Formats: sequence, structure tokens, C-alpha cells
Amino acid sequence: MKDVKLEDLPLREDLRGRTPYGAPQLDVAVRLNTNENPYPPPPELVADVTASVEEVARQLHRYPDRDAVALREDLAAYISKSTGYPVTYENLWAANGSNEILQQILQAFGGPGRIAIGFEPSYSMHPIISAGTKTEWVPAPRREDFSLDVAQAADIVSAKKPDLTFVTSPNNPTGQSVPLEDLRVLIEAAPGIVVVDEAYAEFSSQPSAVSLLDDYGHKMVVCRTMSKAFAFAGGRLGYMIAASAVVDALQLVRLPYHLSLLTQAAARAALRHADATLASVAKLAAERDRVVEALAGMGYSPVPSDANFVLFGPFESGAWQSYLDRGVLIRDVGIPGHLRVTIGTPDENDAFLAASKEIIA
Amino acid sequence: MKDVKLEDLPLREDLRGRTPYGAPQLDVAVRLNTNENPYPPPPELVADVTASVEEVARQLHRYPDRDAVALREDLAAYISKSTGYPVTYENLWAANGSNEILQQILQAFGGPGRIAIGFEPSYSMHPIISAGTKTEWVPAPRREDFSLDVAQAADIVSAKKPDLTFVTSPNNPTGQSVPLEDLRVLIEAAPGIVVVDEAYAEFSSQPSAVSLLDDYGHKMVVCRTMSKAFAFAGGRLGYMIAASAVVDALQLVRLPYHLSLLTQAAARAALRHADATLASVAKLAAERDRVVEALAGMGYSPVPSDANFVLFGPFESGAWQSYLDRGVLIRDVGIPGHLRVTIGTPDENDAFLAASKEIIA
Repeated sequence: MKDVKLEDLPLREDLRGRTPYGAPQLDVAVRLNTNENPYPPPPELVADVTASVEEVARQLHRYPDRDAVALREDLAAYISKSTGYPVTYENLWAANGSNEILQQILQAFGGPGRIAIGFEPSYSMHPIISAGTKTEWVPAPRREDFSLDVAQAADIVSAKKPDLTFVTSPNNPTGQSVPLEDLRVLIEAAPGIVVVDEAYAEFSSQPSAVSLLDDYGHKMVVCRTMSKAFAFAGGRLGYMIAASAVVDALQLVRLPYHLSLLTQAAARAALRHADATLASVAKLAAERDRVVEALAGMGYSPVPSDANFVLFGPFESGAWQSYLDRGVLIRDVGIPGHLRVTIGTPDENDAFLAASKEIIA
Repeated sequence: MKDVKLEDLPLREDLRGRTPYGAPQLDVAVRLNTNENPYPPPPELVADVTASVEEVARQLHRYPDRDAVALREDLAAYISKSTGYPVTYENLWAANGSNEILQQILQAFGGPGRIAIGFEPSYSMHPIISAGTKTEWVPAPRREDFSLDVAQAADIVSAKKPDLTFVTSPNNPTGQSVPLEDLRVLIEAAPGIVVVDEAYAEFSSQPSAVSLLDDYGHKMVVCRTMSKAFAFAGGRLGYMIAASAVVDALQLVRLPYHLSLLTQAAARAALRHADATLASVAKLAAERDRVVEALAGMGYSPVPSDANFVLFGPFESGAWQSYLDRGVLIRDVGIPGHLRVTIGTPDENDAFLAASKEIIA
């Protein structure tokens, strides 16, 4: 085949010079860089996923249920039970990871001529998917300590009038949750849709924002994922809780049959084992608190975290490599002087802490 | 939750009044409406998918290979073998159905201010995904008999200067393939990227367009799917063959980790059984020819087909329902006086032909 270079292609101007998103996927003993749950799925979950897949595999020649109703019913049952706020499948929508949910939200409510705002540093896919849907991204600040100044945030939202406002709670990569009363202030101020990204909600000490749907169903959605607490990152299942009309809106932009038979079956199996999987949440929260305390004891300044990761510093540049040289893969999230570590198993955390001690020495 | 209506939401103006894409998913005895392969996967494929999923399910807590290299290697081996044109994994890209591939192509090379063209009637997702990415869609005609007039097509492409030109071969829903020499004329005339959609290539009597990559790697891509000949519609696996620089371009817009562990493992298992699955292709082609002949014998006018479906007419309105009333689900693709039937098993085709005989009586 003739040699073709990227520069030879009629690529969109706004993509030129960009690099693909993603943390390095390296084969390192201690991987604490993508906020995965370190505990493998229990054997009974593996068996249930396998049996469920075997069942549906006989129908692989047929398209899956385009509306994924059974899966959405199971997600609705999980949310109703875990938050105490009753929802039905009509309030649920699912996709291949929460990134696809976010993309559909931006396709329906954002796009050319529309504005999205977020409080940075936060989840870096929010601006990337905004760009991918040609939604103008307006970054807004957090406090010096990375917490959200809700009065300032509400002022900015009132002034900029974004079509979409992203709030991540707990916030990735900084770790703090946003209390419900603060969310309420922000949603009141926002003229458009507020997307509450609760990817790490199961780790949080704060209640879910879903109860705010009672008052703000016309202007808010809650995004979730099974990648973190549910230990299902490999299964790629994100979902959204919202008024049913918002679900109807996303069905106008979703690609038909976006969720495979296998994804639907495997996610339903994983949900049947939610109690077993989510038992790791308390262990990870306790380990997180141990790691924070140990880091502080060494002289680091960890940011208080309500999630399964900790942002900490201060560092000179090159520290990320120093960890990697010690067999510990953590994340450089682009905040000067800081790195983010995912909470792993006690052994992994010990390895990380040992490396941290050497590095600060 | 407070009642919220779609009209209450700040939906994009261009989406207002639309309805979601998709054929009715009805529980009918004879389903010949979505061009699925009627033959279920063989038991050894089901067993291999199941074993492969069991293997990777133990790692469900980890993100999948973001670049899906092993799957792309297997797809490259399949394309190299089946077309005789050697490609490597760097020429292959995969996603959740060819719709997601098309969306990524439009995000990279289309978008606001750019134009896509297609020769209608053709695959209806081309204009829908163009709209979803804010690419202006310019419909161009086919001949009265639905074949592609390549001289006229080249003239239109020269005049309109589209950024993207879609050619479907065999064309859905009409069935005709585009010969390589015609494709060459069209690609020469096109100023931008030509997307050759080969979703039904395995059924075609014409060679694949991949060999044209030798000359036109800088301005063409070939899209494929495992949904049709491969009997893998439920697995949702579409792919693209192109110059590696085009793959690099799509990596700038793809959502990270878009292909789950399960999808990658199951698709690789299905590819290992390609010979068994594709054995159905000859059977379906023979049945197609039988169906076309029988329809013509009854007084219908079937369009000559190179795929696993047949467009035929003439009909008064209401004919689609007449088939459904007889337990046969076929497709109204929006072409006045015509319906499209997917080729099923001999028994399904007999049921369809019996209904056709009653309806024309």
C-alpha cells in the first residue's frame, strides 16, 4: 500500500496536531493509574457472566434489543435500592461506557453554537467530548485547594449562560464531592442542562444527586458507570438517570443497536452480584484513608478524597517516571506539582507508599 | 419525579420533531427485515465465544486494550486471506458496529462546514450519522432501476466537491454492486474521502474495493461489518480497512476504551470460525436467486441483487402490513411501491413466497 501520512489527509483543522486521549497502557506490576477496582470479579460473577453469554451467544446472528429494556430495568432497580429514590427503566439509559452517554448528551443538547462549562481540573473527557461534538468548551476555576466554590460557580454560570454545565462529584482527579445543597444552588443558577457526573458515587460520603430530579428533571441528568466500584471497566457500561424525556432525547442521537447482546447480558449478570462487588467499596475507602494519612505523615500534601484515588504533591517534574522506575504506575493528570494514585489492594498500596517514601527522601 | 416533556428540554433545534431510527422489533415467526443471517452460530462457535468470555471475564475489573490490537490482527488476517490483498493490523480499525466506524469517519473528516454526498436510495444511516455530526448531507440520484450511473455520479462529485462521498456496494436497500472500474472513476473524481461501504461484500460477485487502496490510500476507506455474512449482528462489530494514517485519524476522535473486553474476545472467537459461518453465504445466494425467480414468476419486479436481500414491487400502500398479517416481517425502506425482504432459511423464504402469492392475487 502506498505510504500515506496524516498530513496528506483532509482531516478537520481542529484535530490537526492532536494526540489520542489515554493513559499509557504499560505492563507494570502495580497499576494504580486508571481508577480501576483492584479486586477481580468474584468467581460466582465470572460464572454468571459466562453462563449468560453462553445463553445469548446462540442468538448472535440476531440484532440485540435496541432499547436494552431488561438491562435498564435492572439498573433502575439498583439505583432505586442504593439511593432510596425510586426510578423506572424509563429514567435509565445505558451505553458503551459513560463516555458514550456524555457524547450522546452533547449531541442532543450541545453542538455547534452551544456552550458547555466545567470546573477544572476535572474529568478531562468532558472538554474532549465537547470538542468532538463541536460544543464550545468554557473552563471555569475551582478554589486553590481544588474544592468547588459554589457561589463563584453559580455566578459564572449565570454570566456565561452555558447550554450544559458539568459537575463531577466526587470530582476526578481531585476527589471532593459536591454537597446536595451546593448542587441545588448551581442547578438553580444554570440556564441549561446540568450534568452531574457520579462515576465515583459509590465511594462518596455524600448522597447521590438523583433525588434532585424531583425538582429539576427538566434541567439535570446524573451519569454513572460500572467501571469503578462495580469492577466492570472491561465490560464498558455507563448509564444515566434522568427524566424519561431526556432518555427520549438521547434516543434521537444514539446509534441503533449500540449495546451488544453480550454487553447487555454481562452487565445484567454483574448487577446480580452487586452486593459482592460493592463489598470492596468499604475496604477501598479504608485503604484510601490509610494512604492519605501515610502520605501526609511523609510530608506530602494529599487532597482529601471521597473517591478511590488521591491527588497529592508537591512534586518536581519527573516524579511520575520515578514511580514507574520503581514498578508503580500512577497518573500524571497534568496538574503541575501533583500526581494521582488509584487506591489498590493493601499490597499495592504498600508498594506505592514505599516508593513514595523513597521519592520524597 | 415531576413530569417533563421533550418540548420542555433545550434540545437542539435540528432534532425537534424527529423520531429514533430503527425498524420495528416485533416478535413474529418469520423475521426478514434487518438483513440478518438466518443461521444461528454453530455450536462450536458458541462454545468458543463462551470459553473466550470466561477467560477474559476474570479481568473485567481492568480496562480493555484501548487499541484492540489482537482483534485488528485477526481482522487483517481475514481480509488478507479473503480478498488476496495483504493488510496488517495498522490498516484495520474496529468499533461497536459499522455505524460507530461511520460516525468516527464523519467526526474526523466531516462536521460543521463540510459536505457528504451519497447516491440514494442507499443505507439510511449515512445521512442520519452525517446529521448527527453536523455534516451537510447532499443526496444524489441513482438511475430509475436503482443502479449507479457512474459518469453522472462523477460529474456530481466534481461539481459539488464533497468532503466525503459514500458508495455502498452492494447497495442497501437495492442490492447492486459497483464494479471496481466504476469505483475508480468515482474516486478519481472525488476531491475528498470516498467511503466504500461493503457491509454485504461477502455476498457479492464483485471483488472488494480494498485493492484500490494501493492507488487511493490517501482518499478512500472500506467499511465492513460482522453483522451480516458473519452472523454476528448481536456482537456489534464493524471495522474499516484503510491506510494506517486514516486509522491514526480515527484514533483522534474515538472514545477511549470503546471496545469492551467481551466484544474483543467474542469477535476474535467468531473470526476463528469464519469458514463455518461463511459457508452459509453460498446457500443464501442460491436462495436469493430462487426467491428472485419466484417473485418474477408471480408478476413482481425484483431488483437484481448481489446481497442477502431483495428489493421488489410494485405495491400499493399497505402491503407491508399485509405481510405482517401473514406472520412475515419484511422492511418498508421508504421507497414508494417497494419493499425489501431479507433472504432467510428455505422455510422462511417459502413462507414469504406463499404470502407474496396471496398478496399479488
